[in-house]
Amino acid sequence: MAQELRGALIIGQSGGPTSVINASAYGVIRTALDAECITKVYGAHYGIKGVLDDDLFVMDEEDKDELDKLMYTPSSALGSCRYKMKDPDVDDTDYKRILEIFQKYDVRYFCYNGGNDSMDTCNKISKYMQKVGYECRIMGVPKTIDNDLYGTDHCPGYGSAAKYIATSIMEVARDTEVYNVGMVTVIECMGRHAGWLTAAAALANTDGHCCDFIYLPERDFDMGKFISDVKSRYEERGNCVVAVSEGIHYADGSFVSEAQISGTDGFGHAQLGGLAARLAEVVKKEIGCKTRGIEFSLLQRCGAHLASGTDIEEAFMAGEAAVKAMLEGETDKMVAFECTRDGGYKCNTKLIDLSDVANVESKVPDEWINEEGNNVLEAFLDYARPLVQGETPMRKVDGLPDFANLKRVKA
Amino acid sequence: MAQELRGALIIGQSGGPTSVINASAYGVIRTALDAECITKVYGAHYGIKGVLDDDLFVMDEEDKDELDKLMYTPSSALGSCRYKMKDPDVDDTDYKRILEIFQKYDVRYFCYNGGNDSMDTCNKISKYMQKVGYECRIMGVPKTIDNDLYGTDHCPGYGSAAKYIATSIMEVARDTEVYNVGMVTVIECMGRHAGWLTAAAALANTDGHCCDFIYLPERDFDMGKFISDVKSRYEERGNCVVAVSEGIHYADGSFVSEAQISGTDGFGHAQLGGLAARLAEVVKKEIGCKTRGIEFSLLQRCGAHLASGTDIEEAFMAGEAAVKAMLEGETDKMVAFECTRDGGYKCNTKLIDLSDVANVESKVPDEWINEEGNNVLEAFLDYARPLVQGETPMRKVDGLPDFANLKRVKA
Repeated sequence: MAQELRGALIIGQSGGPTSVINASAYGVIRTALDAECITKVYGAHYGIKGVLDDDLFVMDEEDKDELDKLMYTPSSALGSCRYKMKDPDVDDTDYKRILEIFQKYDVRYFCYNGGNDSMDTCNKISKYMQKVGYECRIMGVPKTIDNDLYGTDHCPGYGSAAKYIATSIMEVARDTEVYNVGMVTVIECMGRHAGWLTAAAALANTDGHCCDFIYLPERDFDMGKFISDVKSRYEERGNCVVAVSEGIHYADGSFVSEAQISGTDGFGHAQLGGLAARLAEVVKKEIGCKTRGIEFSLLQRCGAHLASGTDIEEAFMAGEAAVKAMLEGETDKMVAFECTRDGGYKCNTKLIDLSDVANVESKVPDEWINEEGNNVLEAFLDYARPLVQGETPMRKVDGLPDFANLKRVKA
Repeated sequence: MAQELRGALIIGQSGGPTSVINASAYGVIRTALDAECITKVYGAHYGIKGVLDDDLFVMDEEDKDELDKLMYTPSSALGSCRYKMKDPDVDDTDYKRILEIFQKYDVRYFCYNGGNDSMDTCNKISKYMQKVGYECRIMGVPKTIDNDLYGTDHCPGYGSAAKYIATSIMEVARDTEVYNVGMVTVIECMGRHAGWLTAAAALANTDGHCCDFIYLPERDFDMGKFISDVKSRYEERGNCVVAVSEGIHYADGSFVSEAQISGTDGFGHAQLGGLAARLAEVVKKEIGCKTRGIEFSLLQRCGAHLASGTDIEEAFMAGEAAVKAMLEGETDKMVAFECTRDGGYKCNTKLIDLSDVANVESKVPDEWINEEGNNVLEAFLDYARPLVQGETPMRKVDGLPDFANLKRVKA
């Protein structure tokens, strides 16, 4: 057992929110509130900016019942930020300020809940505190619907977004088959560099009302191939549903969503609007059929009513594991998941070095994508299926969500 | 008790699907299968077109367990159509054909499940059968997310779409507050002529994370007023969420979604893309803030995972009531709801003449809209709240919906 370290804890949430980021925050807060040697639990308002601005909430002041609701309340209850920390060797202003706040509130535990950039922030703060000799245990808690964090089987937030996408596509696919007039539906999922979210569309293929093609940013996009894929399926079945990542790009690296769709290659001309609408327009022009573009937009990352029960539990577990590890003397790490799927799904936490995880992106393995580059293979489904299991314990009042409303008492 | 009429029944689904149209179909099918004097139950493939094309499914051949799943399976399980019947005095070809099919299968009961146009179809067929003296009982079953059918308190399908909209806006509103950088979010709901769906956004205002403004097609849209509404709220709170009906229009009747947003009045120039994206662009230009446009698109009418339990039960009840009424000798009517809300919500069925309901549109009452025309009043909330109560009994497999897959055995 490590030496007991008495002091306060700060939890910060960073980057884009998810349906379960508050479950992780609650894992941290609940475990910290229950820990003898953690003297106070603060929530940073707007992530690390809340620390810099001396803008902290006292979580000890919150009602337990309201905190419990964090388990199914989407978005970042403490507020988030996208703030890139400078290299402390170049400019250590922010780091000095963070140290000042840590000293002011006797902070000895710091948890940062976020994605790649947030783990970079966490890593830099951790290294700085070690350098100046301020005793403080620092732990990263993973979060991202993008599922692109290195060193973990998957990220809290992904399972819920995947469940939202798969369920919604199952529903939309049935809707598109209603008339005896065919339709091509293009559905846009988030994911700038990694196709994990879009790949989840393949989970919808359970009963023959399916997502026909899936295009990920892991492969170069070829407009001609896309048209030909869609056209052949449309001619065969009179209907076609396609999922595309927002980040699909041509071989030259230019995003399809931003590229001029050149008049010379017969694919129409520049358009405003989202990628789904643009591709729907191209298909309409090329095939002459009815089309519709649907963008899941923010709904896929905040649709907590459809969160995965597994994801919620694991998100809490990640936060809990972070505090427990710090209490045991660990620091400078990120909580990660290691899972087994053979003989029943099991997920356990482990710790990995912050230095290893910061700024590395994990993508859909090449061998999980089919040769044609227009779908994912069974290996992906085996990976993703366990992550969307189980339902949210969301409480409702008058048929609508009863989300947490924190008092947000300032420190 | 009316004279017993022995013969087959046809159920057809028409118009845009909803999350609960299959629950109504099941109300008809289940009740008909259990009725002694109904000799066979047919489902028309693609609505009235299935009758015209002699394309019928034998519902007696379906497994009960699979039929039970219709209670929570979205979209039209039998297929739908948008087919406008000609005036029989001008061209009675279709009517003769329908009579031929009715005679071929000894059809004595016909249920048509749809909106305004479908009730017109139902009415015309009913009057024709009376004219030619073919004994057949005909009953309309209401359906539409738009909630614009005359003579009924509300329409099956509306409560579920309203619940989807309110829940999703509650979630999106929280997401938009995450950063300390403000944002204006414009959300587009369906509803070309009636604002019922968009008004449901007001149900999201339960906990201070709300939809700030609501613009319905019942009032003329004024772009200057809209900008000024949004700007003042954005300046006050640093955030603003707005819901608009797809059918909002200027005083001259032109749809905002289609109108050139003229350069001369400073609102930018013509754009492709949906209404939400266009208005978001206008706000960005006028206020200079971050904006986002979100279109609920098909999701609001097929999001059965979030269907209202009340809506599902009432949809079934409407179908059941239609068959029971026909068995009692009623014909030429549409099932409608009459509800009481004082002292607890109660919903009962009644019958109204098809002639009265066909082609009449019901809109949000003027006195339920505020004077400024940018929100709805408490009276609307009192009306809508009971309709979104209760949850779906949807069964899931591996965390995803277990929808009905009918055998579709041809007659």
